[in-house]
Amino acid sequence: MTSDRLARQIAFLVEADKLKAVDRRTPLTDGSRAENSAEHSWHLGLAALTLSEYAGAVNVPRVLELLAVHDLVEIDAGDTFAYDAAANVTKAERERTAAKRIFGMLPSDQAARLHAAWEEFEAAETPEARFANALDRLQALLQNMQAGGGSWTEHRITRSQVLRRMSPVESALPDIWPFVLDVIEQSCRAGAIERD
Amino acid sequence: MTSDRLARQIAFLVEADKLKAVDRRTPLTDGSRAENSAEHSWHLGLAALTLSEYAGAVNVPRVLELLAVHDLVEIDAGDTFAYDAAANVTKAERERTAAKRIFGMLPSDQAARLHAAWEEFEAAETPEARFANALDRLQALLQNMQAGGGSWTEHRITRSQVLRRMSPVESALPDIWPFVLDVIEQSCRAGAIERD
Repeated sequence: MTSDRLARQIAFLVEADKLKAVDRRTPLTDGSRAENSAEHSWHLGLAALTLSEYAGAVNVPRVLELLAVHDLVEIDAGDTFAYDAAANVTKAERERTAAKRIFGMLPSDQAARLHAAWEEFEAAETPEARFANALDRLQALLQNMQAGGGSWTEHRITRSQVLRRMSPVESALPDIWPFVLDVIEQSCRAGAIERD
Repeated sequence: MTSDRLARQIAFLVEADKLKAVDRRTPLTDGSRAENSAEHSWHLGLAALTLSEYAGAVNVPRVLELLAVHDLVEIDAGDTFAYDAAANVTKAERERTAAKRIFGMLPSDQAARLHAAWEEFEAAETPEARFANALDRLQALLQNMQAGGGSWTEHRITRSQVLRRMSPVESALPDIWPFVLDVIEQSCRAGAIERD
């Protein structure tokens, strides 16, 4: 009774559930547990709706699409810690393989569209992808800040590492950059980020 | 340095993090734990992108906006179990109060817009809201089905209760309705839903 097309779409949505079991290094704001990549993706969508006025001319619906799929590859490839240089060497290849499998579950027209959305996010070249990437960085900053240090403290991350990591915010959301610098400065003072 | 407007937007996004701590009655598909309302909201956004072709003429970006905010009131009001008749009597009032506080954290223009999106979802009258509500029902069905019964089994829910709960799918996504009936029939046969 169920068409092959619908069956594939349902199977994809069931598979997507696994993203809820992929933990990130950033904690919830109350520090009670690690954030997972599914709830993180929702939070970024809400941030896109809230902060789009700072991003210049962007197609917000497209941003929401990029954000909805941007972490799905982690179902196979896991979350790669931003500050883990070794893991980041193999990240691209692992995620490419994952994208092929996961988006490939969908009917081919949708597979192509959502795969392209993931690639657009990764390339971070369009205004939409640069805004989405900036939100991804900014949200981690807010989580760590609220949790009193989070992954910064746990992994003894330094000021220059955080500044480099946050640089997409400077270019995509310049009016928010002073706030980011302020958070970094306060976190250094509180000992949550190491000075270098 | 940070404008009052940006400070309010950041405070709202930080507050929204609390939705990750609101557990629903539906489990993850592997049954390992309860799903929370934040990751559920993300999953619905992905479902909207995947299944919009079954919804007739809908404004998908607006659907994504409704879904992003549809459960935020649960930060104060908690998740009300769909099959708990007593709790559902007080639900509307508790959620209205919550909406006022939570959306009210935003600058007034954004507060009005997102509050209206939540009200639109709740009223379930526009094509966008009817599609969003149907996805909300369908996703719970998929979660329970995959988990081998989930909240149906735990609370001894009957076939007629599930049919009533799923009825928004019949009207908003008629081509998916046979699939829903099929899942319900199989779940009855497996003992996950009680026949009445």
